[in-house]
Amino acid sequence: MNLSDIEIARQATKLPIRDIAAKLDIPYEDIVPYGHDKAKISAKYIETLKNNKNGKLILVTAINPTPAGEGKTTTTIGLTDALNHIGKKAVASLREPSLGPNFGQKGGAAGGGRSQVIPMEDINLHFTGDFHAITSANNLLAAMVDNHIYWGNEQNIDSRRITWKRVVDMNDRALRDIVLSLGGVKNGFCRQSGFDITVASEIMAIFCLSENLADLTKRLGKIIIGYRYDKTPVTASDIHAEGAMAVLLRDALAPNLVQTIEHNPAFIHGGPFANIAHGCNSVIATKTALKLADYVVTEAGFGADLGAEKFFDIKCRKAGLKPDATVIVATIRALKMNGGIEKSDLAHENVAALKKGTANLLRHISNMEKYGVPVIVAVNYFNSDTDAEIEALQKIVAETGHQAIICHHWEKGGEGAEELARAVVKMIAENKSNFHPLYADNLSLEEKINTIVREIYGGRGADIPANILNQLKAWDEEGYGTLPVCMAKTQYSFSADPKLLGAPENFTIPVREVKLSAGAGFVVVICGDIMTMPGLPRHPMAEKIHLDENGNIEGLS
Amino acid sequence: MNLSDIEIARQATKLPIRDIAAKLDIPYEDIVPYGHDKAKISAKYIETLKNNKNGKLILVTAINPTPAGEGKTTTTIGLTDALNHIGKKAVASLREPSLGPNFGQKGGAAGGGRSQVIPMEDINLHFTGDFHAITSANNLLAAMVDNHIYWGNEQNIDSRRITWKRVVDMNDRALRDIVLSLGGVKNGFCRQSGFDITVASEIMAIFCLSENLADLTKRLGKIIIGYRYDKTPVTASDIHAEGAMAVLLRDALAPNLVQTIEHNPAFIHGGPFANIAHGCNSVIATKTALKLADYVVTEAGFGADLGAEKFFDIKCRKAGLKPDATVIVATIRALKMNGGIEKSDLAHENVAALKKGTANLLRHISNMEKYGVPVIVAVNYFNSDTDAEIEALQKIVAETGHQAIICHHWEKGGEGAEELARAVVKMIAENKSNFHPLYADNLSLEEKINTIVREIYGGRGADIPANILNQLKAWDEEGYGTLPVCMAKTQYSFSADPKLLGAPENFTIPVREVKLSAGAGFVVVICGDIMTMPGLPRHPMAEKIHLDENGNIEGLS
Repeated sequence: MNLSDIEIARQATKLPIRDIAAKLDIPYEDIVPYGHDKAKISAKYIETLKNNKNGKLILVTAINPTPAGEGKTTTTIGLTDALNHIGKKAVASLREPSLGPNFGQKGGAAGGGRSQVIPMEDINLHFTGDFHAITSANNLLAAMVDNHIYWGNEQNIDSRRITWKRVVDMNDRALRDIVLSLGGVKNGFCRQSGFDITVASEIMAIFCLSENLADLTKRLGKIIIGYRYDKTPVTASDIHAEGAMAVLLRDALAPNLVQTIEHNPAFIHGGPFANIAHGCNSVIATKTALKLADYVVTEAGFGADLGAEKFFDIKCRKAGLKPDATVIVATIRALKMNGGIEKSDLAHENVAALKKGTANLLRHISNMEKYGVPVIVAVNYFNSDTDAEIEALQKIVAETGHQAIICHHWEKGGEGAEELARAVVKMIAENKSNFHPLYADNLSLEEKINTIVREIYGGRGADIPANILNQLKAWDEEGYGTLPVCMAKTQYSFSADPKLLGAPENFTIPVREVKLSAGAGFVVVICGDIMTMPGLPRHPMAEKIHLDENGNIEGLS
Repeated sequence: MNLSDIEIARQATKLPIRDIAAKLDIPYEDIVPYGHDKAKISAKYIETLKNNKNGKLILVTAINPTPAGEGKTTTTIGLTDALNHIGKKAVASLREPSLGPNFGQKGGAAGGGRSQVIPMEDINLHFTGDFHAITSANNLLAAMVDNHIYWGNEQNIDSRRITWKRVVDMNDRALRDIVLSLGGVKNGFCRQSGFDITVASEIMAIFCLSENLADLTKRLGKIIIGYRYDKTPVTASDIHAEGAMAVLLRDALAPNLVQTIEHNPAFIHGGPFANIAHGCNSVIATKTALKLADYVVTEAGFGADLGAEKFFDIKCRKAGLKPDATVIVATIRALKMNGGIEKSDLAHENVAALKKGTANLLRHISNMEKYGVPVIVAVNYFNSDTDAEIEALQKIVAETGHQAIICHHWEKGGEGAEELARAVVKMIAENKSNFHPLYADNLSLEEKINTIVREIYGGRGADIPANILNQLKAWDEEGYGTLPVCMAKTQYSFSADPKLLGAPENFTIPVREVKLSAGAGFVVVICGDIMTMPGLPRHPMAEKIHLDENGNIEGLS
């Protein structure tokens, strides 16, 4: 039983992807196979689904993450399997993992235990090439910017004010801050720039928010690549780049279909950062899944303060999605850490610490209620959880009028989350969702920021320096004020201080920088150090990852 | 009839790729489909072919390229179709085009007229992701090099002597010469470096010369990334990078199967530079094709002085391939340019210029004979060719004991090259190939260079500065002397001066730099300016490439 995730994934029998597609009534000619176990759903076929009724949309989110782990992706997959287990037609709709970090220190992002999506190695590496397409489109635009300047700079781009960076899907700190175009006349005009990791590209966010190819092209054209000497913005369409970028992204925009180890369909498509972007899988994948299944289980990045807030206020608002249920994942271990216990002491029963740490969960519950969507808590079970702890947690949650259901999907697969599945189905049937975003479009950008800080984070307000306030006001006046804001802060705390666990109060959120993602359609509000290009550790996983004599991948976890 | 290449490609009906595989008796479960019109052949299946008899290997090469065009890829495809047309089981084995240059000014690289491979757009863009995999593996190694130094530099890498560069599959002159790791302690140690285009990566050459995954891994480990303070080389295996790089390349190493517009099988796999690398498609694809077909038609980069020389002296030598026929492609237009006529005057009959320019073809013919493989000339017909010109050309070639056959495959497809196909089959049946490389392994590196300059280029010898001569001698002594040399010089002339057309004599070849590609297994001899990162023109194709309202790609040619 003590198999590693990768061993479980490898032992799983895979059904041919055409059989998975058949479960959703998708004919073979309408899938675009990538091998025998992955496929894209053709855009033409998606077009035919237009008039189908939508299924129910379930968001899986979580308390603030800790090193003890919550298992949000695992629970998303477990709940999907459980829904299928009780006879419902359910699909998981997940984010694609990034290639680069696999070679650093992170494990994969395909679930765990008996709740996984397969083929795990493919999903974690090149998969169907979507991220490579995004990298190419991003870097074509960058090359065209420098090329425009090289050939005379008709647009009068101020090379000191170019904001568009190149990207690479690799953890490579050496590329964070570079000087380009050295070597004289033939290489262009020397300037300082840098690389982000691919998932941090605005194109990733655009990709995930686009409704179709035409919308994608329009959004790509709106990307601001920098500013002229007169400080007016220069867009991708000013240098005629959006068409070729869309060509590079065309095939990638079709959602990817794989399977859980219990042979249930899972869409895995797009994966923007959850700080400088909105952290949700693609609108196209979610909407396609809703047309094909009765229940669609999706997830958002980080804890509910960042992930769910953006899911509701950016993705659902912009895409017109109406979620039907919110599942908040917690673990007793992580709640005890929120209650002040060190990771090394988590194996011991500690009801007092649990109770204290549950404050974090309770605030997330009351936050989620503000969106008008019914809420339930999924407790991802660990062997170290004691009866007394479970009882205490369930009692506290019950006092708020909600249920906390213990789930064993990690160990048992869908069967282990049957109780959760039944409770979610019942909740959706009995409690009609009345979804609405937290704030109205016509609030000013400053008011939007303060609303989130007060209503979701529980702070007193945002601390916005005068120059940034002026910038926000200028955007309000230039017509960008109706955009939602995308908060970039630490995922570890409601506050901007990663060490303030539980449910801190009386803090302010310092705003350091704001950035207009005009193509994605949001204003990024940066509150703290946000890393857009990770580095490798002293001994990266890459040193151990290799092929065995049969060509199997070893060392990828 | 005046359809563009892309129009012809779009009008072509495509057979499902499983039907193309079936023509080669490959079962559906042994192909790895990428959509319904592309597939890879699984490594497991290739293993089962081991004991099959090999088909005949035909190299298509050309006179020195001119702006008038020769049509080497087109002829390779046309001959394959023609062989199938006369009832032979024939496969084309071609190089993959690079993505980046599509957005600059070049047209695609999938043949032309009625001799094309399809799906043309896919092949020219992301295809099956092979180049993205190579980019990732290259850049993982680069990140690991800088990371190694960052964390203490146990190997004592001299950061001034790092030779490994990053790559991107994009024409981006701004990345040619850069400074990395600015921004202080957290970003590492600042140093100067640069990016090449992906096809220039040594990994591309390794990929194309590897026999299997184990061989690939071994070669990756041998890559020299730079030198220690004591000037000893540091390899990829010294920093434990080869395993993870091989993981990134695993799926890519399986050859890609597509079809000609006449539904004949074509393998398209790998595409290294023809100057700093050997310019041939992958050994795995060629060998797999030989196991599956009676005739395999392959091509090499540039003219025969560079492309065929490397095909024979690097690829065939190293992979143990024994080619059975050499086809030299020429056009009357290009021969007239070699005879001194401007491009604008090519439409007029000029037998004198043709005769003069034919000196270029004749030297290639006599060069090719030195390898012991029977030679034939394919004249790729243009409408402007006159009977007098054709007659004159055929007569001159006949005087050397060879045939020059007029081919109409561009206009008519396989049927148009029937005469060539029959002549090639007859030549192979009647003239047993006695292939041998030009020079022996045990010649010194200097002697190898001089042999090529004298025997193939027709020059007096190489002009090698003392410091480079010392480097070559050092490599001879260190055990690298048995490697073949890989000449990097202009493709436009036998000499190092691109303006010396025809068959120049009495020149020397100046050697500017030598480079050890220890993983690929050759010594690169650089004779002139070699561009390893192209730039974009003033108005790149990217400005016009776009999707139409139906999601079709427009502007890619």
